[in-house]
Amino acid sequence: MATSRKRKTPKIAPTKANSPSSLDALFRPRAIAVIGASRRVNQIGHQIVRNLVEGNFTGPVYPVNPGATVVHSAHCFKKVSGIPGVVDLAVIVVPAPLVLDAVKDCGKKGVRGIVVITAGFSEVGGEGTSRQVELVALCKKFGIRLIGPNCMGILNTAADISMNASFADTQPIRGRAAFLSQSGALGAAILSDARSLGLGMSMFASVGNRADVSPADLLEYWGDDEATTEILMYLEAFGEPERFMPIARRVSRKKPILVVKSGRTASGAKAAISHTGSLAGSEAAVDSLLYQCGVLRVDSMKELFALAGAVQAGKLPSGRRLAIVTNAGGPGILATDAIVSEGLVMADFSKKTNTLLKKLLPPEASFANPVDLIASGDAKRFDAALQIVRTDPNVDMVLAIFVAPIMIDAESVATVFAKHAAATEKPFVTCLPGKDQHDPAIEILHRAGVPNYRFPEEAAAVLIGLRKLKKLRERPSEVAPKFRVNKTKARKVITSALDAGRDTLNGTELFTLTRAYGIPVVPSSIVSSREQALSKAKRLGFPLVAKVEIKELSHKSDSGGVILGIRDREDLLDAYDTLEARFGKDFPNMEILLQSMRSGGVETFFGAASDPVFGKMLAFGLGGIHVEILKDVVFRVHPLTPADAAEMVNGIRSVAMLEGARGKPPVNKAELEELLLRLSQMLTDLPEIAEFDLNPFLAGYDGEGSCILDMRVRLERC
Amino acid sequence: MATSRKRKTPKIAPTKANSPSSLDALFRPRAIAVIGASRRVNQIGHQIVRNLVEGNFTGPVYPVNPGATVVHSAHCFKKVSGIPGVVDLAVIVVPAPLVLDAVKDCGKKGVRGIVVITAGFSEVGGEGTSRQVELVALCKKFGIRLIGPNCMGILNTAADISMNASFADTQPIRGRAAFLSQSGALGAAILSDARSLGLGMSMFASVGNRADVSPADLLEYWGDDEATTEILMYLEAFGEPERFMPIARRVSRKKPILVVKSGRTASGAKAAISHTGSLAGSEAAVDSLLYQCGVLRVDSMKELFALAGAVQAGKLPSGRRLAIVTNAGGPGILATDAIVSEGLVMADFSKKTNTLLKKLLPPEASFANPVDLIASGDAKRFDAALQIVRTDPNVDMVLAIFVAPIMIDAESVATVFAKHAAATEKPFVTCLPGKDQHDPAIEILHRAGVPNYRFPEEAAAVLIGLRKLKKLRERPSEVAPKFRVNKTKARKVITSALDAGRDTLNGTELFTLTRAYGIPVVPSSIVSSREQALSKAKRLGFPLVAKVEIKELSHKSDSGGVILGIRDREDLLDAYDTLEARFGKDFPNMEILLQSMRSGGVETFFGAASDPVFGKMLAFGLGGIHVEILKDVVFRVHPLTPADAAEMVNGIRSVAMLEGARGKPPVNKAELEELLLRLSQMLTDLPEIAEFDLNPFLAGYDGEGSCILDMRVRLERC
Repeated sequence: MATSRKRKTPKIAPTKANSPSSLDALFRPRAIAVIGASRRVNQIGHQIVRNLVEGNFTGPVYPVNPGATVVHSAHCFKKVSGIPGVVDLAVIVVPAPLVLDAVKDCGKKGVRGIVVITAGFSEVGGEGTSRQVELVALCKKFGIRLIGPNCMGILNTAADISMNASFADTQPIRGRAAFLSQSGALGAAILSDARSLGLGMSMFASVGNRADVSPADLLEYWGDDEATTEILMYLEAFGEPERFMPIARRVSRKKPILVVKSGRTASGAKAAISHTGSLAGSEAAVDSLLYQCGVLRVDSMKELFALAGAVQAGKLPSGRRLAIVTNAGGPGILATDAIVSEGLVMADFSKKTNTLLKKLLPPEASFANPVDLIASGDAKRFDAALQIVRTDPNVDMVLAIFVAPIMIDAESVATVFAKHAAATEKPFVTCLPGKDQHDPAIEILHRAGVPNYRFPEEAAAVLIGLRKLKKLRERPSEVAPKFRVNKTKARKVITSALDAGRDTLNGTELFTLTRAYGIPVVPSSIVSSREQALSKAKRLGFPLVAKVEIKELSHKSDSGGVILGIRDREDLLDAYDTLEARFGKDFPNMEILLQSMRSGGVETFFGAASDPVFGKMLAFGLGGIHVEILKDVVFRVHPLTPADAAEMVNGIRSVAMLEGARGKPPVNKAELEELLLRLSQMLTDLPEIAEFDLNPFLAGYDGEGSCILDMRVRLERC
Repeated sequence: MATSRKRKTPKIAPTKANSPSSLDALFRPRAIAVIGASRRVNQIGHQIVRNLVEGNFTGPVYPVNPGATVVHSAHCFKKVSGIPGVVDLAVIVVPAPLVLDAVKDCGKKGVRGIVVITAGFSEVGGEGTSRQVELVALCKKFGIRLIGPNCMGILNTAADISMNASFADTQPIRGRAAFLSQSGALGAAILSDARSLGLGMSMFASVGNRADVSPADLLEYWGDDEATTEILMYLEAFGEPERFMPIARRVSRKKPILVVKSGRTASGAKAAISHTGSLAGSEAAVDSLLYQCGVLRVDSMKELFALAGAVQAGKLPSGRRLAIVTNAGGPGILATDAIVSEGLVMADFSKKTNTLLKKLLPPEASFANPVDLIASGDAKRFDAALQIVRTDPNVDMVLAIFVAPIMIDAESVATVFAKHAAATEKPFVTCLPGKDQHDPAIEILHRAGVPNYRFPEEAAAVLIGLRKLKKLRERPSEVAPKFRVNKTKARKVITSALDAGRDTLNGTELFTLTRAYGIPVVPSSIVSSREQALSKAKRLGFPLVAKVEIKELSHKSDSGGVILGIRDREDLLDAYDTLEARFGKDFPNMEILLQSMRSGGVETFFGAASDPVFGKMLAFGLGGIHVEILKDVVFRVHPLTPADAAEMVNGIRSVAMLEGARGKPPVNKAELEELLLRLSQMLTDLPEIAEFDLNPFLAGYDGEGSCILDMRVRLERC
């Protein structure tokens, strides 16, 4: 365990290169070389040396620069290999063309970790990209873990290390949040903001181009670090979601993980590409992936800081019921507004609370939630009211608001707030509108570790975030059941289609495939003559639907390719002739699919597609306009857990349509969830399935007669 | 004009009590009495005297308190009527039971304006309510304008007045924003926040219970005040929307009006009621009303302050194209994300700009928007890049971001930002992540009046707000056309129904009413026997629809009360028997409506309802599940302008359904807009129409054959 090691007996474990503790060379080095150390005060190569020294790094710092003899009052070495003692970490600041030689020298010296600050690698393309490839190869060869290139450095505030190996202008406050920034420049601002907001950090890493150490590596490392109680990330792209996902899933159950993932919109993603040279995943994929991993995505850096502070108080709400105690109506209303539109509710007080509050408060006060102690509410009144409210079993979290009137002593009110915050296991946040950061009342709250905010809406947003974190952590973690399927039969269908040079499946193949996975299909036949139609119809029985089968045609019903309500042989021949007249000329190979006509259910949509970054994704929605026009579709990254499937089915806006709206009976939602899990299993078993659409799948009322009405599959050789 | 008066020749215009200039007695008094002035430092009655004196009020301040002889070194009077000089304004702080006597004394003295700080009026109900009624009656009698009761006071920072008649703990900065707060406690926080954010104020009023002076009065007054260039409001409820609406419409064309209206959600509204004793309007109504008046509603106080500062720079973007110039990728991406999800777009630079930037910047920089000057970008590079970008005709607004690296001088960059902000008519905002308020670079921007923000998302939100303001101002202000209708015939229908004691209209009446307003109706007949059905069918022609006519039944199709596709006489008799069998037993008075069967269009929904606060509202959406389940409906407050109607039709999420989705032809949207205006005219002409539903109204493809398929009207005697 990283943090249990004593500084006295340093030991960089000689493990395999990718094990988490190999990051100890980076974050717990015994000695550090700064290659490219500079005598000029306004240079990065100087600032890093100064930050290390003034940050009181517990080991020796060795400036390296062939053109200098002293940097920041320390002896300067020509080469790393010339340094007499052991060197675990090298921070490299030399110009890009000199980096590879410096790394070779590090390898020779036995350095185990390097941070490459220098830019001019994959983010500029061309020569830079090949330079980065070489850099990674060198590090691999020497067993060196690499942060960067193109980054602003790393920090570890642990007392036995005290390392600021960055060129930030700010020394961080020691604390419990580990922070990863994918943007170097933003990293500097993050450290400055964290300091001025009083947010303490355990470790910090600016990962730059992520050529070696990735967000997943750091998640794993910090997940095991005892000094770290929460993990914050600013991400622009995902490098390796297939590693990130299981690690995040595991770590998020131990520690809250908060992420600002930028490149959220199309233009944002464009900017991300030009900035980091990496692919930004689609938004649907990012949102789903983070959610499925138990990671809370927040919208802005500001929100991240506000929430991170509150998380350090270590309390998450066990329910969604908020109580507000205030001495002023306005801010109480603003906070109420903000929470209710986001899924929290105002607590309904117990009878006891109501009785006690009525006894306690003057008649002009408001006893209902928000409790308004009115302007005369002083520390004593707050004390009594908070005691009653925070112990009410109907209350899951408390927001105390105090707008300082001239006649009330703000510091004693703050002291009362701190006392109640300490006394309860429920989240307890405060809001003192109009009070500046350095106000004595604010400092009381700050010292007591009470999350305090200036605006009621900020406090509300934080409480919403805490509740979301709690719910993420409560998400069931069970894995998907394995259904009994006929994988052999399904595999044969796929292989033979691919062998025939096709990337789609025909009607019979689709029928076999879906049957093999236990997915109900409507009885149907493909016919290519009037006679065949009549004979098959006899078997299927009327009423029937006739659909033209043409590969190029995607919206059959919009182009007149579907005829419903075929009641008898005469109707059938009419339909055949009509479709032939409409399509036969342009598509001489057309065939006609006859299906039993099903009705009396809800048309749903199931889909799968491949995301360039995240791999397979599954989608669920209602059919027709719901998917095509209203875009009322929920995505999840494959493979699905039962919780994922349930959230997909219940997550569409029009879920009421499944639950028996407009006088109709409900459909069986559990059946739809199971179908999603079966489809996910199919994707796992048959990775050649690159995309599919079940559109529509008829979900029968009361679970009767559900079946696929139409389906398409696209294959891709793996 | 209020502000053109010279202090030397004070004159409180002896106008009618409700004219705007009667507010001069409140905001431009020659002398002020503080009734209830106190010697005790921590009392409101002391603080007000002190604020007036230390705020350098330009006239005399007279403390009034029968129990004191001196307050804050000023002679204290027993009664207002005992004061020797003229007194224009009295601030009343005595306990509630003593207020009325104090007002009478003011009346005797000839005081023209009073501010009642004291609480214990309508907000506590009972005795308080009757006390407020008496207070208003007294003020009316004496021709006194009243602010409050239950408020924290008023301010006017104009140099010739310099009045802080509040008990806030903060002296405001003189400036150009007028601020109204409906919450007293929040008012104190507002003044403190404004000061610490550097937002200058012209006037401020905490209106409390709004017993006399209302938000509408202040809007009108500040609309004419030359020192005020923007108006900010925190509102909890609307007192008199029918006055507020035309005034806001007019004033918002002259000056931006920003509003935080709380009580947004159901629980929030509950809190608002218990706080102010006033009705909060429904959310749909509030949003529409403010929008229709050209008022920008913002979500939080924080956003209000951020935007208000930028508005003072006096520039609104003429388009939605933003250019970002940054020295760091991360914040550029965050800002891009934030703007694009809110309707702004990243500018596509002109060819010239692209060429110039490529010549100017090092190859590792990003020339596309956001322009990334990379970490080596100094003041000179920013200067050149901003010159190119801000003069590009494809750019409507500029965001300059600077994350200070160690080797770049931040103050010279800030100076360059200030220079370009001053040189352009386009909104120009800056973001210096990680920089504190008192950083010298920030102070340079501050002094130059450049709106600067710490977080890129804040800057983005402000630009979005500026664009919204501009669009509000560009909204066409033309009034609705008057259609030629047969009002007499329609009036007769309404009157005879009401006279017959009915509050709904039958089929024939509905037909007459809608025909009178030029609204197409499908040919139809009501029948009550099989014979009648056959004879009417001959006239209407097949195919037909049969609908059961039962008042109690609202969802006819869900309960089997509608039979479609009646193709001949046989079908018709079948349908008649079916409906009779289904409903005849329970509803012996049932009738049957026969309609020509129309198809081939989009079913839309038009509705009207009465809001308790705002009066009539109109609604538009698509029919069926769109209105009932997806709630995809746009509301506007009646009466509608053509712009309102166009926004309603184009504002639904599923507008694509009207524009020819899924291979269908489009419907005529202009016809739907006209229909909304005709319906609005109907509501004006016939105020007895309390509610109606046109559900569905079939909008024919290509504008052919549109007609009402079903309609209900509810009447209410006015």
